[in-house]
Amino acid sequence: MFKVNENYGKLPGSYLFSTIGKKVAAYQEANPDKKIIRLGIGDVTQPIAPSIIAAMHSAVDEMANADTFRGYAPDLGYDFLRNAICENDYKARGCDIAPDEIFVSDGAKSDSGNIQELFDVSCKVAVCDPVYPVYVDSNVMAGRTGTYDATTGMWSDVIYMPTTAENNFIPEFPKENPDLIYICCPNNPTGTTLKKSDLQAWVDYANKIGAVIIYDAAYEAYISENDVAHSIYECTGAKTCAIEIRSFSKNAGFTGVRLGFTVVPKDLKCGDVSLNGMWARRHGTKFNGAPYIVQRAGEAVYSAQGKAELKEQVAYYMKNAAVIKSGLEKAGYTVFGGVNAPYIWLKTPDGMNSWEFFDYLLEKANVVGTPGSGFGPSGEGYFRLTAFGRYENTLEAIERISKL
Amino acid sequence: MFKVNENYGKLPGSYLFSTIGKKVAAYQEANPDKKIIRLGIGDVTQPIAPSIIAAMHSAVDEMANADTFRGYAPDLGYDFLRNAICENDYKARGCDIAPDEIFVSDGAKSDSGNIQELFDVSCKVAVCDPVYPVYVDSNVMAGRTGTYDATTGMWSDVIYMPTTAENNFIPEFPKENPDLIYICCPNNPTGTTLKKSDLQAWVDYANKIGAVIIYDAAYEAYISENDVAHSIYECTGAKTCAIEIRSFSKNAGFTGVRLGFTVVPKDLKCGDVSLNGMWARRHGTKFNGAPYIVQRAGEAVYSAQGKAELKEQVAYYMKNAAVIKSGLEKAGYTVFGGVNAPYIWLKTPDGMNSWEFFDYLLEKANVVGTPGSGFGPSGEGYFRLTAFGRYENTLEAIERISKL
Repeated sequence: MFKVNENYGKLPGSYLFSTIGKKVAAYQEANPDKKIIRLGIGDVTQPIAPSIIAAMHSAVDEMANADTFRGYAPDLGYDFLRNAICENDYKARGCDIAPDEIFVSDGAKSDSGNIQELFDVSCKVAVCDPVYPVYVDSNVMAGRTGTYDATTGMWSDVIYMPTTAENNFIPEFPKENPDLIYICCPNNPTGTTLKKSDLQAWVDYANKIGAVIIYDAAYEAYISENDVAHSIYECTGAKTCAIEIRSFSKNAGFTGVRLGFTVVPKDLKCGDVSLNGMWARRHGTKFNGAPYIVQRAGEAVYSAQGKAELKEQVAYYMKNAAVIKSGLEKAGYTVFGGVNAPYIWLKTPDGMNSWEFFDYLLEKANVVGTPGSGFGPSGEGYFRLTAFGRYENTLEAIERISKL
Repeated sequence: MFKVNENYGKLPGSYLFSTIGKKVAAYQEANPDKKIIRLGIGDVTQPIAPSIIAAMHSAVDEMANADTFRGYAPDLGYDFLRNAICENDYKARGCDIAPDEIFVSDGAKSDSGNIQELFDVSCKVAVCDPVYPVYVDSNVMAGRTGTYDATTGMWSDVIYMPTTAENNFIPEFPKENPDLIYICCPNNPTGTTLKKSDLQAWVDYANKIGAVIIYDAAYEAYISENDVAHSIYECTGAKTCAIEIRSFSKNAGFTGVRLGFTVVPKDLKCGDVSLNGMWARRHGTKFNGAPYIVQRAGEAVYSAQGKAELKEQVAYYMKNAAVIKSGLEKAGYTVFGGVNAPYIWLKTPDGMNSWEFFDYLLEKANVVGTPGSGFGPSGEGYFRLTAFGRYENTLEAIERISKL
């Protein structure tokens, strides 16, 4: 008789956003007249920019003609896209990354979840707390996290690095040495960032103890301050200790288009085993490339017109962030983030816990946010609002919250 | 110091098609005047059908407008597509499969590679031999296959089920009970099929011994004979023992569009653990849905116009298959497949091994095929040609081979 992977059974409850979805659906069904405003899931709302739409139409037309039709893409991505990424995201920032260190994928979620496969099951994982749940969940499924304590919300074999108001959202080096360190910067959900000097300290630390940093830079396009790195490879020594995961979801609105990439430098090795080669092998065996149409869309992101259009789109969302941040501050809330990221992280008022505040906001203001505790134990007592809504809705949501 | 997943290091050489690609590139560079015809990789050449192109343009336009823009897709697929699949691929064939047993993905390769994650590392894997290499390779990466013997080309812990001319390409039940049984039907690379009665015997066997059949039906659209099942769920009892993987690559030319799906019936359980729930959890954690545009393309496959166009496309390739089959037979080759599948499987002549015949064909006829040994030890002495080329090229290739 076959046996299943028992690690799956250790995962508590269902995925955060499914739970929220169900709660909101139940509320809406019971209150069909209420206009609910969703500032919960980090999903974009602005349409795809015109230059990208044009690129997709053009690629669709190529697929209609035998002379220009494209079948299987190269597993690791088309050169036109890998070169555009290399030039714009790395060379332009002084990072020495080559096109064959860039692996195009169907999105940062897949890469964040799959990257742990390259490592031994004995590797010790450290995560910022709170953080995007996929890092821990994918390691649970692989059997790296020990047992779950429902009271604390913690896994016995995971190293949690609290990033809270108390430490100014800068994680401290853990007491026990980790093998894998997940850093999301700008951070989801706190909307806070590390300064480049703080990140350099993490790179130095990882090199010293022989750990790998999985650096998720999905929100890089929202960085507005000069002392924040856009890529971990701006730090000296990062190529021997860091993998960087990037997304087109938040800078180009590709949540429904699906495109991302991961950088695995050739200098990143375990003895003489190159992680670049391992990741290439994984792509070659378990992935068949991102769609041609979507890769052409990705290329258009780097065109002059694409850049101009997307700068406006990011500015649109950051205007929302400013509305949320200043509105909540005026209403007396303690608020973080929103300067280098499209997330606002607030302290729940009056001793409410995160889910209590979720219910309170849903019922009293008909606004949906995300309970901080869903992102890790140190998220308890916090709440996330996103700047990805429409401007008018964002204004109205903050007005409603301010009146409570 | 971090450790890597040592199983990756056990994989011999590189992926079959990379090796072929390199050999062909080297030959072309040395012989720039030669016109090489590629009947090697199973990649389609016909352009995407007009009704599907129209659906993609329309979906791209929806993404350009804030009112119709789509962000994150449901992890498991849009209902419009899951319903269309359910109606056309299952209900129309009398299979009792519900939409929530259908999981839309970015392709059958990803699903074939990822599905083993649901099972314990101790599970014993059986594969037809020869077969699509991803089944074994993904289990190697997970540590289920023991050690590799370079002399035999076999893994110590894999059960090989020879499917060769000797047993009329019908695998026998193995002596040792497997937990996971991979069956590709119609088979890649042999182009042969099991009759429905043979498949029913495998379903009965799996239910009896408590094994799961991973049934890869990527070539289902090419079945022309009535006694061959299009879905394993046409067999009685399959819902308690079988997972079916399907692709849009070969029936709709989506190799560069990327779309597939996997059926995990709710009745498939290990004790009280539902594999349907586990696969849903995997999708929710490590995947973010196939692109909206691509899912609309998939929906168009099931429209009346789409069906008519794709029937022609399949007929086009099957005409090639007939040309290859009859041409090679006339030239004295022993040939299999090509009736219910777009692959022709031939015995290499004059005692040549598979790679010798590959080199011979490349150098003497400038035709690229695939060495049978690349698909497993029992593929040695065979060679695969595909019907996915253009008709004129296929004719010319067979003419060249016939003249050797």
